[in-house]
Amino acid sequence: MMSEFDLIAKYFTRPTQRAVLGVGDDCALLEPSVRMHQCITSDMLVEGRHFLSTVDPYRLGVKSLAVNLSDLAACGATPTAFTLSLALPQLDVNWLEQFSKGLWDTAIEYGIDLVGGDTTLGPLCIGITALGEVPPGDALLRSGAFEGDDIYVSGTLGDAALALDVFRGHTSVDSRAFERIRRRLEQPTPRVALGVALRGVANACIDVSDGLVGDLNHILQRSQVGAVLTTDWVNQSAAISKDMQELSYSNRLDYVLGGGDDYELVFTARQTAREDVVSASEQSNTKVTLIGQITKERGLKVLDSDGELITRRFLSFDHFQRSN
Amino acid sequence: MMSEFDLIAKYFTRPTQRAVLGVGDDCALLEPSVRMHQCITSDMLVEGRHFLSTVDPYRLGVKSLAVNLSDLAACGATPTAFTLSLALPQLDVNWLEQFSKGLWDTAIEYGIDLVGGDTTLGPLCIGITALGEVPPGDALLRSGAFEGDDIYVSGTLGDAALALDVFRGHTSVDSRAFERIRRRLEQPTPRVALGVALRGVANACIDVSDGLVGDLNHILQRSQVGAVLTTDWVNQSAAISKDMQELSYSNRLDYVLGGGDDYELVFTARQTAREDVVSASEQSNTKVTLIGQITKERGLKVLDSDGELITRRFLSFDHFQRSN
Repeated sequence: MMSEFDLIAKYFTRPTQRAVLGVGDDCALLEPSVRMHQCITSDMLVEGRHFLSTVDPYRLGVKSLAVNLSDLAACGATPTAFTLSLALPQLDVNWLEQFSKGLWDTAIEYGIDLVGGDTTLGPLCIGITALGEVPPGDALLRSGAFEGDDIYVSGTLGDAALALDVFRGHTSVDSRAFERIRRRLEQPTPRVALGVALRGVANACIDVSDGLVGDLNHILQRSQVGAVLTTDWVNQSAAISKDMQELSYSNRLDYVLGGGDDYELVFTARQTAREDVVSASEQSNTKVTLIGQITKERGLKVLDSDGELITRRFLSFDHFQRSN
Repeated sequence: MMSEFDLIAKYFTRPTQRAVLGVGDDCALLEPSVRMHQCITSDMLVEGRHFLSTVDPYRLGVKSLAVNLSDLAACGATPTAFTLSLALPQLDVNWLEQFSKGLWDTAIEYGIDLVGGDTTLGPLCIGITALGEVPPGDALLRSGAFEGDDIYVSGTLGDAALALDVFRGHTSVDSRAFERIRRRLEQPTPRVALGVALRGVANACIDVSDGLVGDLNHILQRSQVGAVLTTDWVNQSAAISKDMQELSYSNRLDYVLGGGDDYELVFTARQTAREDVVSASEQSNTKVTLIGQITKERGLKVLDSDGELITRRFLSFDHFQRSN
């Protein structure tokens, strides 16, 4: 039978691109770039809570790393390295092949090293810590939004939450649509290039993991401001996929404003920086959509297409409860 | 009911001592010291595998961080910061109070910041990634042992494995002895000061988490050397506690050579560096014991007090099997 050390050697050890020392010692060694700040983020994915037990292990490998890269993207960081802690219910060679392939493909795509970690038997649980770099003062924080800032979102919203509802049997879509939206759920795209391009352009940023309204609220609280979201863009815009377009306006609002797992960036920027935002979008080949404005008055207001206040609440994901 | 964000704010957020930005944003921000290499290590602790479900949560908080600091110690690194990913079966306020207190007490003792992480519902699982710093070229690695090096161990060996056997009902000791040895199991002392003092003195180092023989073998494999371990020191030395002294020689050998969870350092140093090793031991107020020599001939030989080869195998812990 394969030992813990064989397993690590076979699936999780490759020569490092940048790290001084990678997998195989008590610690890995990294040489930080001169005068850069180091960014660090950790996310743990638990079976049944963050992914379905039926998920394709390749896609799970991609997603496990992608959600961490998304946090780095939200800070405008360039990813450099990551560690993996893995609890496995059994030693399943096929699963390990596929999972590690998804992980490596993603690591290679973003040019980062797997530098260490840990494997053990236990309920399936994936812990990743990702590291990145950003010039001092350039990190995009939740706390930087100002009154009058535009609010933008990258990519499209709601598709991942719709896919989850299909998996749960709450709704259905045709099979080609399902393939598209489940890919958004199972293999999210971290907006790393956009985050880097937004250095010095965006005032505040967060990634949408728990839902637009909930995550935007973190920016508002940290920045001590409020916001008005318009919803014209929910009718038709780059942020609305053709699969979302098929839904009723009311359903679409729920998915787009409340759905989680999109891993898009929500960010704010001065109105005078609109051209810079367009440049950042082009530079990173990532569509962005203007969705509202930051206000001095606290709280988050969502207006319908007639400018009337929408009073219903939009749920956002909380790992210990469901709340707004 | 407490939300995920309230929980993090209440139990896992304090002002940082060194980090530029701590818990509360998508990433934490660290400013590495100029010209230092960054060390990184991750360990995941799963209930039932790395700790008993009955363990005192305060001690579990201590241990979760200590085992990561032990990896940093084995590299000679000065710890700087850590992240925590925590899956909890339920929101148990008393558990969280105690666990977080153990974690913070340890963090404060070693002067490091909790800078981020993640909490979720799930089977109890604790993932910590710890960061440290070491001057370039000074990191103690598994690969640095040379023919003729002395082999040393810090502190005492075997106590933690004995405590585990008492918990399992395989043996018994008196209640005062049990209190002493269970503390060694449940609240190990990472040898951080010794690791730092050994920079430039030790050639190779590893921490004893899976058992002396198994962990020393990692040094031998990486360094492409062999070793001879004497066992006079197993009869009486600073490495043998009075509780271990109570056991028969044969039992003692098993615990001392094969038992895990000690979190002591095993290291090698040139014979000409013996005075430097004594200085490092005094400087760090940590006893060390000479236990053998590195040989050119590969393999690990254990000699009894008459210099005869001991041929029995000593088990070492592997999370996917039990092997030597």
